[in-house]
Amino acid sequence: MADVVLIGTGITRFGKALATPLRALVHEAVDGALADAGIAATDLQAAFCGNAIAGLITGQEMVRGQVALRSMGIQGIPVVNVENACATGSTALHLACTAVASGQYDLVLVVGAEKMTHQDRRRPVLAVASALDVEDDVDLDSPSPFMDVYAAKVREYLTQSQATVEDLGRVVVKAQRLGALNPKAQYGGDVTVEQVLADPLISDPLTRLMCSPIGDGAAAVVVASAERARALGITHPVRVLASVLQSGSAPGSGEPAGVRSARLAYERAGLGPQDLDVVELHDAAASSELTRYESLQLCGPGEGARLIRDGVTDLGGALPVNTGGGLLARGHPIGATGCAQVVELCDQLRARSGARQVPGARTALADNGGGWVGGDAAAECVHVLAI
Amino acid sequence: MADVVLIGTGITRFGKALATPLRALVHEAVDGALADAGIAATDLQAAFCGNAIAGLITGQEMVRGQVALRSMGIQGIPVVNVENACATGSTALHLACTAVASGQYDLVLVVGAEKMTHQDRRRPVLAVASALDVEDDVDLDSPSPFMDVYAAKVREYLTQSQATVEDLGRVVVKAQRLGALNPKAQYGGDVTVEQVLADPLISDPLTRLMCSPIGDGAAAVVVASAERARALGITHPVRVLASVLQSGSAPGSGEPAGVRSARLAYERAGLGPQDLDVVELHDAAASSELTRYESLQLCGPGEGARLIRDGVTDLGGALPVNTGGGLLARGHPIGATGCAQVVELCDQLRARSGARQVPGARTALADNGGGWVGGDAAAECVHVLAI
Repeated sequence: MADVVLIGTGITRFGKALATPLRALVHEAVDGALADAGIAATDLQAAFCGNAIAGLITGQEMVRGQVALRSMGIQGIPVVNVENACATGSTALHLACTAVASGQYDLVLVVGAEKMTHQDRRRPVLAVASALDVEDDVDLDSPSPFMDVYAAKVREYLTQSQATVEDLGRVVVKAQRLGALNPKAQYGGDVTVEQVLADPLISDPLTRLMCSPIGDGAAAVVVASAERARALGITHPVRVLASVLQSGSAPGSGEPAGVRSARLAYERAGLGPQDLDVVELHDAAASSELTRYESLQLCGPGEGARLIRDGVTDLGGALPVNTGGGLLARGHPIGATGCAQVVELCDQLRARSGARQVPGARTALADNGGGWVGGDAAAECVHVLAI
Repeated sequence: MADVVLIGTGITRFGKALATPLRALVHEAVDGALADAGIAATDLQAAFCGNAIAGLITGQEMVRGQVALRSMGIQGIPVVNVENACATGSTALHLACTAVASGQYDLVLVVGAEKMTHQDRRRPVLAVASALDVEDDVDLDSPSPFMDVYAAKVREYLTQSQATVEDLGRVVVKAQRLGALNPKAQYGGDVTVEQVLADPLISDPLTRLMCSPIGDGAAAVVVASAERARALGITHPVRVLASVLQSGSAPGSGEPAGVRSARLAYERAGLGPQDLDVVELHDAAASSELTRYESLQLCGPGEGARLIRDGVTDLGGALPVNTGGGLLARGHPIGATGCAQVVELCDQLRARSGARQVPGARTALADNGGGWVGGDAAAECVHVLAI
């Protein structure tokens, strides 16, 4: 995708904003991205809108993007509504990159947004469970049916790797500490491993602090062709070196989608994990950070715990991961997350991350996963970016 | 899109199939499309899945395509879930054509599917209303909130055009007569204009027979690059001459999305309405057939009624429209319709439409509309096809 670049980003603060409607979140993120790109809404040629659960929260299906964008005066451009569980935002970005690469457009908007909070606090929990096969796989009596999937995986992982529950605690400690440096993060602060382990259990062994929270938020990205970016006077846009979407394990090899999406992304970008300066990965549960170190080839199989123990992936380490606090601390408004990761990485590559800046960051990877169907990841989307 | 072709189609019978789950509909349509293309599921490189209201019918959000495809053994390929109100199926096709045109894939699946019937008969009616802005524009007490939008438009149209309510009746008479020739149609048979007008009123002046019905169904299309089709030994695939998506009226000119999508499709296809042999258009209400004759430039402004009165758009006329019975008679399982239109046109272009064949059809247009936001069409998608 040598011709596809990112020229502007915007993001709301993530958090519980019960009184704020979805469209207001979209407005704020999109306004920010347009201002950052230095373009007007009327310059946009198309919009790809990611939202995962509005149908189950407000009853708004079918035209979610149009409703949100129209109410801020954006109209008369093609709007596509995209949904891919927790990988919704990155899938919307993937489609936008594909459309620009096809030559169809040269300036398009991507927005991922989610309104999760609801006066019925059980509703978002069950809505999240619709990332499973709802007819076959949802235990309605569970405190968090979707976290049960992660919990089952981490129980297996703990027996097969060097990792311990203390390592899960270390992931949270890092996430919360970095989240405190991110003014857009839902949470952030100093916690200890002991506090993390003593937090209420959601799904054994995952405690509440080990699970990404319920929250609201939106993030937006402006995608352009390199030529259009030049015409706009943007001399150093963020380049999209690879945009890869995969679903489920390969029928023949059994290669999981997370492994395959990373492998293909490296191949297409023409680089390897050793070339990365900063990474955003999908830590929907603390354990995911460790397993994704491995699927992204940042370490060998079973070695994920070493990276967190040795501070390799901390700010100041060799390869900082989730500098914005990750899903655990920045928050995880489902449809927004894939875009929020890219906002964070664009800030890093453009050297405007303030206290959490990775000095000299030039190459970055975003890894966004979603859904669980038939014992398999429903969507895994990896973007490799560079400046 | 000179390099994008359609090489296989499949469709279920449309109708009320309360006991049939969504995934079973998907299986049947996809199996048909794969067999028609002469390929195996393992040949597919990606899938674009359109569904509009499963979240509101079964609670399945986020991973609808994965759930349906995985249960028939299709896994390990990227799956994108798309939603664009009643233009969902065509939007999925549009994205698939874009992805093939970008060079990313050369053999992809498109499936549009909808399960609308529910033991609570009010539920699908309200689900359809989520094609409006549910926070601002839905009258929950209306027998059919979405048909109220069409009714308001037709009341205006009847004062501004040559059309009468009898012309709306004529549209239904044609649709039902052609539907009877389509073994996949939900309805079909001989009705008179008088019977149509005497049918129960849904939203003045639309009677029940003037409104597309609630129903279940799925349709699938296999999209390929021309080169891959040749490699598969397919010498005369259906070529995609244009694939255009638009949303809302243009901010400057006020040009409606339906007019603009058709105009752009003709421009990109390098032909005009006079070159068409057969058309599928979005007759969600009988009046739409007349207004869309006009937006598609099949006649001048206000002249739509002439075409139906003179039999121009009937089978045997100069330009047959909705040979499969249209949404009124074939049925309108929301997410399936955009694909079903293309299935009908591929059959016509491949001369396998049996009793409803348009002799020598070589060029076709599919027009699929969806949603209503801010007094404007939320999505209009036009495909121009040729053999």
